[in-house]
Amino acid sequence: MADKSEKTKARLPRGFADRSAEDIRAVEKMMATIRSVYELYGFEPVDQPMIEYTDALGKFLPDQDRPNEGVFSFQDDDDQWLSLRYDLTAPTARFVAENYDRLPKPYRSYRSGWVFRNEKPGPGRFRQFMQFDADTIGTPGVAADAEMAMMMADVMEALGIKRGDYVIRVNNRKVLDGVLEAIGLGGDENAGRRLTVLRAIDKLDKLGVEGVQLLLGTGRKDESGDFTKGAGLDKPHIELVMNCVAAVGEMRASNHATVQDLKGSLGNISACEAGLNELEEIALLCDAAGYGPARIKIDPSVVRGLEYYTGPVFEAELLAEIPNEDGQIVRFGSVGGGGRYDGLVSRFRGEPVPATGFSIGVSRLMTALKNLGKLDISDVVAPVVVLVMDKDTESLGRYQKMVAELRAAGIRSEMYLGGAGMKAQLKYADRRGSPIAVIQGGDERAKGEVQIKDLIEGARLSAEITDNAEWRAARPAQVTVVEGELVAEVKKILAAQAADRAKGGA
Amino acid sequence: MADKSEKTKARLPRGFADRSAEDIRAVEKMMATIRSVYELYGFEPVDQPMIEYTDALGKFLPDQDRPNEGVFSFQDDDDQWLSLRYDLTAPTARFVAENYDRLPKPYRSYRSGWVFRNEKPGPGRFRQFMQFDADTIGTPGVAADAEMAMMMADVMEALGIKRGDYVIRVNNRKVLDGVLEAIGLGGDENAGRRLTVLRAIDKLDKLGVEGVQLLLGTGRKDESGDFTKGAGLDKPHIELVMNCVAAVGEMRASNHATVQDLKGSLGNISACEAGLNELEEIALLCDAAGYGPARIKIDPSVVRGLEYYTGPVFEAELLAEIPNEDGQIVRFGSVGGGGRYDGLVSRFRGEPVPATGFSIGVSRLMTALKNLGKLDISDVVAPVVVLVMDKDTESLGRYQKMVAELRAAGIRSEMYLGGAGMKAQLKYADRRGSPIAVIQGGDERAKGEVQIKDLIEGARLSAEITDNAEWRAARPAQVTVVEGELVAEVKKILAAQAADRAKGGA
Repeated sequence: MADKSEKTKARLPRGFADRSAEDIRAVEKMMATIRSVYELYGFEPVDQPMIEYTDALGKFLPDQDRPNEGVFSFQDDDDQWLSLRYDLTAPTARFVAENYDRLPKPYRSYRSGWVFRNEKPGPGRFRQFMQFDADTIGTPGVAADAEMAMMMADVMEALGIKRGDYVIRVNNRKVLDGVLEAIGLGGDENAGRRLTVLRAIDKLDKLGVEGVQLLLGTGRKDESGDFTKGAGLDKPHIELVMNCVAAVGEMRASNHATVQDLKGSLGNISACEAGLNELEEIALLCDAAGYGPARIKIDPSVVRGLEYYTGPVFEAELLAEIPNEDGQIVRFGSVGGGGRYDGLVSRFRGEPVPATGFSIGVSRLMTALKNLGKLDISDVVAPVVVLVMDKDTESLGRYQKMVAELRAAGIRSEMYLGGAGMKAQLKYADRRGSPIAVIQGGDERAKGEVQIKDLIEGARLSAEITDNAEWRAARPAQVTVVEGELVAEVKKILAAQAADRAKGGA
Repeated sequence: MADKSEKTKARLPRGFADRSAEDIRAVEKMMATIRSVYELYGFEPVDQPMIEYTDALGKFLPDQDRPNEGVFSFQDDDDQWLSLRYDLTAPTARFVAENYDRLPKPYRSYRSGWVFRNEKPGPGRFRQFMQFDADTIGTPGVAADAEMAMMMADVMEALGIKRGDYVIRVNNRKVLDGVLEAIGLGGDENAGRRLTVLRAIDKLDKLGVEGVQLLLGTGRKDESGDFTKGAGLDKPHIELVMNCVAAVGEMRASNHATVQDLKGSLGNISACEAGLNELEEIALLCDAAGYGPARIKIDPSVVRGLEYYTGPVFEAELLAEIPNEDGQIVRFGSVGGGGRYDGLVSRFRGEPVPATGFSIGVSRLMTALKNLGKLDISDVVAPVVVLVMDKDTESLGRYQKMVAELRAAGIRSEMYLGGAGMKAQLKYADRRGSPIAVIQGGDERAKGEVQIKDLIEGARLSAEITDNAEWRAARPAQVTVVEGELVAEVKKILAAQAADRAKGGA
């Protein structure tokens, strides 16, 4: 197998990534916080597998127009098509539909996990990524939608994001749907064009008003020269749509005022009425619970790119300006979103099953929190390393026993397992970031002693100390104790290091 | 979409399962314990994606002889084959090979996650399941293997499994390989037959000595009449192999004695010598660290079914007799295993990269722990439910505010979000297992009061209390307080319920 001529290339397919210890610990910490908020709101964990029947997932991705794209699919033994889930909402809808009678209703649940998109990967754009969702299924009341928005605001603050550094934007698809109906884009036969309009608006952030206007009209050519066909609206209709989504700026002092503004400009379109009233109710409920427009903001420009939303839609945005993947300081933008998807469960059951939910993009949010300095994982201490000075089995047994004693005392530690000499072993300990090295050569053994090196203090001493007075004031970087005091001495040094860290030392 | 005639069937493909809140919480708790032991041993988390190039994973599953089976595979845009990982070891090997130069060596890492097998599902046999692995890569020394065995013993005890209720069995593939070489099954050309021998021995538990003897010889017909072709060994060779794997019973008092026994019967086969010496070293190291044969046991019958093992192999077995999936009381058996796989990383690098690791079957271990009563998750309290008596937006806002106050005090709670009446709302709270219902109708509101129902005490009262004296001694199941005391009163009742639970009450 180790023949060089035949060796396999160790590489990952594009769009997939390994995760480091640091990222894993940061995500764990972040997810625990999110989970605690979801639990506080009465949601219960539930979990679906990653593979489902393709027809059960449906195809609601923006790429659905490209056949066989967007979703990883393959055939089962019995020729039925299976797919890797592309989000957590579609499997949730399948699960709830399958177990509807035995579930308490409304059914509040949360889940986290990997999802897969068979799309063109790019910087920060992966084919496997993690989401963390919460859903309330079985109620049409927008109180459920309002609660989603409030919960997301609470999640942001629980994660340490200051008020003012984030906003949960809320809109209602029904308002835009009403406008589209009014300009003749209602009905099943116009579903495709409606979707084109939605996706155009969804790019307002990226392309600006002009770009969106082109996409609503004849189409738009991007920098690379690729042409995207537009929705084909005429000028007055483009104007009406833009009025609906872009008219209300950042200026409004209250959500109620925003809704009144919208009512003013769209109130004569009867198809918009229900949607506007729902927005008004959400605004009132959020206000009553103390979530003003600085946290939850009615914003008509939010539409969300997914086809399955039928009512209120949400977007969690970080307003803080932090470095992006390329190191540029930018407003971070969306870290999650969701909305009402009344059709997803219904399509299994042939009866209305209203539902609403929210999804957090875990990796994106983690990147933001790391850049904001909100994911401190420096409390994880690297292991104490017991060096192997003599390599015979009996000596190994002795070192092994030291490690066993340290571990029994709850101290993270390991015996060096490689074949290297003392210098390389200390280098290994350094590379691991180890706080302490334990050394017992023949001399120490004869005297029943062990040498304990404080690697943190050692590094500090050699880097910082410039005169003798400082040297005498410092902790000794190395002590020799009798074997029986190994654990106690290691504990003492670790405690001193922790105290140094607490006061901002090395 | 909700047209009954076209509705999609909500169902899962065979071999995939949804996970309940109870299972998720139990697994979380168990994994946290396992993780703490891995960390204590100096291992670091690292994580690979679920999709890899098919050739990078290799095919080392028992089913590899059936073409295109065992592994879920599909082609990428550029026609290259991708597969879902079938274990965590193969992706680890790819990762380490790809990042070898920058990793500290020996490299200790752990990871958990879902793996996929495209195999025929059966009871307790899934096509997606979770593993939790630890690996030490970059050292040939069996001290690393001995440590794996000790760590697994520590994991078992950290999970609450009593000493004597589990054992970590250890063997060395090299011993059997030596025997096979001695009987003329050495060399690449006999790789297939060696594998057949391995898999026959791996079934010793299931088929007994006779069944294995048939599989080592001409072959075996099972109950269903299916014939499995044997390895084609002749009688003396079958006997030699069986001596090697089955000669040492449960009786030996020390691992050292077991190894001496093996040396006695196989000492004249020079090809076995290295393997026997390694076993002896493992036995000595475990003894020195205080892990005697009641915890780590040298057992020549352990071979492990995977092809890629090259040296020491381990198996963690639960000896406790607990109910299986069918409710029969049986010795639970294997919950994990592993071994040395020196060829897996090497096949990418064209240089020797020795490695050893261990894998825990998460679902199986969780089932065992649940049956042993070691996964108590009763500390999770269901949410307080605030009933919705009046459904106008203003009233909803008031209920929403109560919930917000409860949550701000850290009390898990929710406003009822459905459309049902009071009786159905109380039934919902009951179904959720809610501890408390909060009620404010028009009368209470006029007086600025709320009614608080202790649902746990209420259920107990109606079920248990038979006379008036008991009734008077009990907590009142319902109190009315002024609005401002809602949070304090709910806290008081929750505390009383927790005290009841602690003393074994309802």
